[in-house]
Amino acid sequence: MSRPNLALIGATGAVGTVMRDIVSSRDDVWGEVRLVASPRSAGKVLRVRGEDVVVRALAPEVFDGIDIAIFDVPDEVSAEWVPIAAERGAIVIDKSGTFRMDPDVPLVVPEVNPHDARQRPRNIISTPNCTTLSMMAAMGALHAEYGLQELVVASYQAVSGAGVAGSARLYDEVEALAGDRSIGQAAGDVRKALANKLPDDSPFPAPVAFNVVPWAGSYKDGGWASEELKLRNESRKILGIPGLKVSATCVRVPVITTHSLAVHARFEREITVADAHRVLEAAPTVVLMDDPANGVFPTPADVVGTDPTYVGRVRQAVDFPNTLDLFVCGDNLRKGAALNAAEIAELVAAEF
Amino acid sequence: MSRPNLALIGATGAVGTVMRDIVSSRDDVWGEVRLVASPRSAGKVLRVRGEDVVVRALAPEVFDGIDIAIFDVPDEVSAEWVPIAAERGAIVIDKSGTFRMDPDVPLVVPEVNPHDARQRPRNIISTPNCTTLSMMAAMGALHAEYGLQELVVASYQAVSGAGVAGSARLYDEVEALAGDRSIGQAAGDVRKALANKLPDDSPFPAPVAFNVVPWAGSYKDGGWASEELKLRNESRKILGIPGLKVSATCVRVPVITTHSLAVHARFEREITVADAHRVLEAAPTVVLMDDPANGVFPTPADVVGTDPTYVGRVRQAVDFPNTLDLFVCGDNLRKGAALNAAEIAELVAAEF
Repeated sequence: MSRPNLALIGATGAVGTVMRDIVSSRDDVWGEVRLVASPRSAGKVLRVRGEDVVVRALAPEVFDGIDIAIFDVPDEVSAEWVPIAAERGAIVIDKSGTFRMDPDVPLVVPEVNPHDARQRPRNIISTPNCTTLSMMAAMGALHAEYGLQELVVASYQAVSGAGVAGSARLYDEVEALAGDRSIGQAAGDVRKALANKLPDDSPFPAPVAFNVVPWAGSYKDGGWASEELKLRNESRKILGIPGLKVSATCVRVPVITTHSLAVHARFEREITVADAHRVLEAAPTVVLMDDPANGVFPTPADVVGTDPTYVGRVRQAVDFPNTLDLFVCGDNLRKGAALNAAEIAELVAAEF
Repeated sequence: MSRPNLALIGATGAVGTVMRDIVSSRDDVWGEVRLVASPRSAGKVLRVRGEDVVVRALAPEVFDGIDIAIFDVPDEVSAEWVPIAAERGAIVIDKSGTFRMDPDVPLVVPEVNPHDARQRPRNIISTPNCTTLSMMAAMGALHAEYGLQELVVASYQAVSGAGVAGSARLYDEVEALAGDRSIGQAAGDVRKALANKLPDDSPFPAPVAFNVVPWAGSYKDGGWASEELKLRNESRKILGIPGLKVSATCVRVPVITTHSLAVHARFEREITVADAHRVLEAAPTVVLMDDPANGVFPTPADVVGTDPTYVGRVRQAVDFPNTLDLFVCGDNLRKGAALNAAEIAELVAAEF
């Protein structure tokens, strides 16, 4: 086995920062690790694997000698540059939405469908949206044994899902509002206080401090937000269930990092809480935190910055057959983004 | 028609404060308005209807001459004192959970089942839990025309649902954490920062700033939180659908006031987004805010302090027949508590 060369495209963003941390802390299977970003960030010196690395500007030549390239860039940048990288011989792992539903591009969660990573006619492997990923390890494990049929999901999505600007905005809003103990009690008071103190450049369509915002992504037909349809379509593809029934409502909450999901899941076969506990405890990347009588359940603040998918509040639905209700938390920058891409990269590296 | 005398029991709490505001601002149909609270608060002077009123301590005599008494006190206080008030001739409107499921006590939302308020063999009328109430006006209107069969609900519950101490805790936590732009990025960092700065007396089982907490109420069999079962049982009773299928997950979010719900609702008859818009626009106490392409949807910060139930994000479920997904916001201290009780009191007052 040789040590393939890895390029990280988008190395300076919110996910890129976590990606450098992950590559530095996991088993080092890499030859060179090359950092690539927009021309604006070129020349910056960043640390990876304990070494200083100079960031290179995105250009066709940066893929010379690269075996595997992980892209974490906006959709339109991926659309242009991923095919260039693949043409130059790199196996690309792309985090954007551009190729996820392409039938010639596998969409991979290593715990769920690792075999799909070997079928990559375009030399591209896609990694799911962070919201979908937050629940995939857990739902994949339950599906393997009980046969998933329906999912009704409501999300509690962290602001860093909208990148560095998302986190900055929540910190800014909290600082602007802290100390006013009347805020959040009259219609529009939060909006008005922020308009007086902060620039009108939020990445969110409404205040996110002292608020929740029922919108994530772009507008789609029928009133759907793109994030809600991704959750449906990507879950179907990853789990290999073309007829999976899914309805989702995506809501942004004032949490920096870690997405949470309230999941109502119906299975083909009868399933009890004890059954689900057994399956989830056996799943290597899932941590069960489910003893609510003693205050044990996952919350974003308690699990952020760690790798597993956390599951709690497992209940057998009273009125629905073969159905569980549960609450899942996963770090949207780690398993939800950088970690899943790194795990796919390691799967591919094992072929070298 | 004469002017009945009204007593407000629990006049100094979070809901009591809003109740005085509501009684002062709506059509004045009352003779005397008497304010009653625990002995600790007795003697305080509070304003209602523009007049100073001295708060009286709860005692059997405070119900002398009272026609209608609204109770907003803890369950155990209602259990003891509501029967005393009813025995002394007051018609009691009780906000606690104590009598809601008693078959001899109607559970009333004036827009949905006003007729039930007349059948009160124990002289007691109960008003629902604030989470149930947040969606009742909207779901009642849709049910009347399309026949509700199933509800899957995830809540985004405001901290003031846990009373004045809940709001104070969120303000305290935000003040303690504001300005630290690294907070919320490592497991347990929020918990640790708060432990250093605030007393260990939170009404919540986990940090609520920069976090969401999947728990509301007390522990019930099967891992359910009491709030989740209330939402099921109370919806069935109010809507008069004993077989309504309900699953709910209740989650506390860092919002001061106004509960939000992501609702997945299945009906007997086919229903489109246009059908739902027509019904909701015609419902007098519902406001439709549903134009997400132009950023129009309800959020707590935009509707707090107002009376209606707000509905947005109405979508026809892609994979489920006769099913809508929608997002509902309602002020948990107004319609969710004080306003609904005041509206019931006015229904009863009309009998005098």
